[in-house]
Amino acid sequence: MMLLNCDMGESYGAWTMGADADVMPHIDLANIACGFHAGDPAIMQRTIALAVAAGVKVGAHPAYPDLAGFGRRSLTFPDTELLAILHYQIGAMKAMCRVADTPLHHVKPHGALYNDMQSSEQLFRLVCQAVANTAPEAKLLTLARPDQEYWRAIAAEYQVDVLFEAFADRAYEDSGQLRSRALSGAVLADRAAILAQVNSLASSARITTFSGNELALPADTICVHGDNPESIATVAAIRESLTTLRA
Amino acid sequence: MMLLNCDMGESYGAWTMGADADVMPHIDLANIACGFHAGDPAIMQRTIALAVAAGVKVGAHPAYPDLAGFGRRSLTFPDTELLAILHYQIGAMKAMCRVADTPLHHVKPHGALYNDMQSSEQLFRLVCQAVANTAPEAKLLTLARPDQEYWRAIAAEYQVDVLFEAFADRAYEDSGQLRSRALSGAVLADRAAILAQVNSLASSARITTFSGNELALPADTICVHGDNPESIATVAAIRESLTTLRA
Amino acid sequence: MMLLNCDMGESYGAWTMGADADVMPHIDLANIACGFHAGDPAIMQRTIALAVAAGVKVGAHPAYPDLAGFGRRSLTFPDTELLAILHYQIGAMKAMCRVADTPLHHVKPHGALYNDMQSSEQLFRLVCQAVANTAPEAKLLTLARPDQEYWRAIAAEYQVDVLFEAFADRAYEDSGQLRSRALSGAVLADRAAILAQVNSLASSARITTFSGNELALPADTICVHGDNPESIATVAAIRESLTTLRA
Amino acid sequence: MMLLNCDMGESYGAWTMGADADVMPHIDLANIACGFHAGDPAIMQRTIALAVAAGVKVGAHPAYPDLAGFGRRSLTFPDTELLAILHYQIGAMKAMCRVADTPLHHVKPHGALYNDMQSSEQLFRLVCQAVANTAPEAKLLTLARPDQEYWRAIAAEYQVDVLFEAFADRAYEDSGQLRSRALSGAVLADRAAILAQVNSLASSARITTFSGNELALPADTICVHGDNPESIATVAAIRESLTTLRA
Repeated sequence: MMLLNCDMGESYGAWTMGADADVMPHIDLANIACGFHAGDPAIMQRTIALAVAAGVKVGAHPAYPDLAGFGRRSLTFPDTELLAILHYQIGAMKAMCRVADTPLHHVKPHGALYNDMQSSEQLFRLVCQAVANTAPEAKLLTLARPDQEYWRAIAAEYQVDVLFEAFADRAYEDSGQLRSRALSGAVLADRAAILAQVNSLASSARITTFSGNELALPADTICVHGDNPESIATVAAIRESLTTLRA
Repeated sequence: MMLLNCDMGESYGAWTMGADADVMPHIDLANIACGFHAGDPAIMQRTIALAVAAGVKVGAHPAYPDLAGFGRRSLTFPDTELLAILHYQIGAMKAMCRVADTPLHHVKPHGALYNDMQSSEQLFRLVCQAVANTAPEAKLLTLARPDQEYWRAIAAEYQVDVLFEAFADRAYEDSGQLRSRALSGAVLADRAAILAQVNSLASSARITTFSGNELALPADTICVHGDNPESIATVAAIRESLTTLRA
Repeated sequence: MMLLNCDMGESYGAWTMGADADVMPHIDLANIACGFHAGDPAIMQRTIALAVAAGVKVGAHPAYPDLAGFGRRSLTFPDTELLAILHYQIGAMKAMCRVADTPLHHVKPHGALYNDMQSSEQLFRLVCQAVANTAPEAKLLTLARPDQEYWRAIAAEYQVDVLFEAFADRAYEDSGQLRSRALSGAVLADRAAILAQVNSLASSARITTFSGNELALPADTICVHGDNPESIATVAAIRESLTTLRA
Repeated sequence: MMLLNCDMGESYGAWTMGADADVMPHIDLANIACGFHAGDPAIMQRTIALAVAAGVKVGAHPAYPDLAGFGRRSLTFPDTELLAILHYQIGAMKAMCRVADTPLHHVKPHGALYNDMQSSEQLFRLVCQAVANTAPEAKLLTLARPDQEYWRAIAAEYQVDVLFEAFADRAYEDSGQLRSRALSGAVLADRAAILAQVNSLASSARITTFSGNELALPADTICVHGDNPESIATVAAIRESLTTLRA
């Protein structure tokens, strides 16, 4: 079964981002911000409660400490510091899961940290170490890619299970990499194209690349977005399409 | 046995506060800042490592979120928000304890939060609830006072054990309250006076108040400070004096 | 002529608040957040540019330093610290006005600071002092109230001119105070009621209180809000109504 | 006359850094942190007062917004954002100078921003633009280097005067660049070596490089540090040595 995951809890203080309550009924996994790029303790707890009420599994969505930049800027840290930054965020989220009587299901790094760990094996290992140290029962959610067995094996060294995610609305290059947002056609704007990509991923573990080729891309979960009424309607359509597929 | 506790890990980023490494050998319990009034993830982890190396038990020292004010200003929050703020900090510290393979031994609120919970039963209950929710194995460290059995019973409603602390260097009123820092004589400046107070607390569970009366004040632990060479020498002297007492 | 003023520039980093570009054409005075409760340097500069393009006068909207609480919590500071906090924010805004080649027209304290200065003459004087120190050419925008000549005289001691503001959508008590938000009927939800209040303020400097009495309340400006399409339509209707009144 | 400059006001909230009051009597120019990497409004105002009392000229020491990293990490921003970040800090400092009735004498970027502008002409121009926009009366304080006339000419395009600084305690390569801190011998630890370098800079505008060669390096000012009793004694010795030289 193809799971849908969505970034959640990205409001902060008096500022609202996302329509969490509206998206929650349509997804399986919530990646909840941990206060370093977005979220604060009250928002985290409310978002966990929303997830639990909808039967959605809770994940931690840790980031570089950069509220002003929303975690989208790469920051460099000594390994021990970055480990501590991850321990802190995962630990805080796990405590809140305990209060809500729900397990911490997964950890998905956010923004620049997510991107950086796709290109740096050292950083990928550090994230695995952080998960193993603080939440060995949780899975690591990372990017589906042609060489994913290589990355799965690394995670296994740390006894960490991996969930690989594909993107519903992003175009892929023949290499299996996401088409850069700096290029035209990086984002699938059309709902029909999005549904076609989702259905192809779910039914045949394949994707049609930007250049029109077929590519094998096994994924455990698909990342969706719920920022506005239009995108929420798309998520609902994806959910319905996947349900039909399974029926 | 009378335990010595000390606030620790109160540096931040490039700024150093306290001489943690110098004090650690002389104390039993470290109250480590959780990043909301002081400390950051790297400092927390380093301070835990220092404590573990010295055989000192680790406690969380959560605070109101107020880095600029060092947690010394009262802030009001709805109960659910303040609970979340405590869950977050205790959870983060507990995860780091896990990484260091040491239990989270106690929780001692910091600054204005500590003071506020002494005068508000509602707030005291909220702190008990937060400890029970996230670290039921940990004790709550709070102020020794004449009516402490009343507060112990409240904590027991939440299955939380309490450690009561007296202060080595603060004068007490006949009421058992700490003499206000706004008044002269609030702080015992003289090492001999400090040692006399500590020895009286440790040997007879009594204290001589500012006005010269005797007051029963059973305490489990004494709070000491280690900001400078002078205060560290005082802590060492207290430790030696307590050891002699026991011998 | 009755001026319309609106709080602006209250987004932060990746978070959007308010529909500044939509409200700007309908108002006269923009109170722009200075980075302590909302806003950041880039947002401040963009908001000033929006104001200048619409012929709107720019004001600084300084606050207590409390991003997490949006400046809505009272914080206490020694006078010299709070003065410095105001100098800093007004100075930053004034420099950005200079870059945009527009004068700093006024200063309106935000949130808890605004409320606190209405009940504390000491704080009101401190705000006057801060304006006099850093932007003596700017007016102070504060609450219209029955005893406003008393407050105008205080400001005059600092050579600071005052603009008094009434609220378009808030009910008033017979005392001339705003009806507390904790009570029912504090906010006029109905556009007709809002327009009636605005027209009464503009044409006769009088207001009908919550209890139905008439009250003299001379005001220089009316505070409006532009958070959503509904409220923006209300602002447009107020503007049109005032224009008709003048014609 | 060779001026001495020193970074100042780098405390934050409850944390103290530097011994500003002890260094101030020995220097000519104070580079005062503006709240983005260190300092807060109260500290800024106190440090300006210290400078004024000692007859020291006040400069703004703006930085990337990075309190947790003390401004030592490079951060990338769109040009308009970084400009706004500089306008904000310079404006805040200038307002505080006005309150203290002292001019803003110079602007010296801090940390990673300082380093980045030495290698990026685009960034150097942006800093010049920010100074020209907000404080055209202030000089830009930047690194003395063999090709400094090239950089002086760029600043002149913005009508900005430049002060070039050499370092009292840093070794130089034959290229005129500072020897990297990653290499041995980067810092002159010995007071005699420091005094020899200062005297050579002051009397002959030359420096002996790490490899033992002579290099012309005209400088207007020498950067000194005042973090501890040892370094303050060195600053005092430098001051005395320069005074003797002039006599």
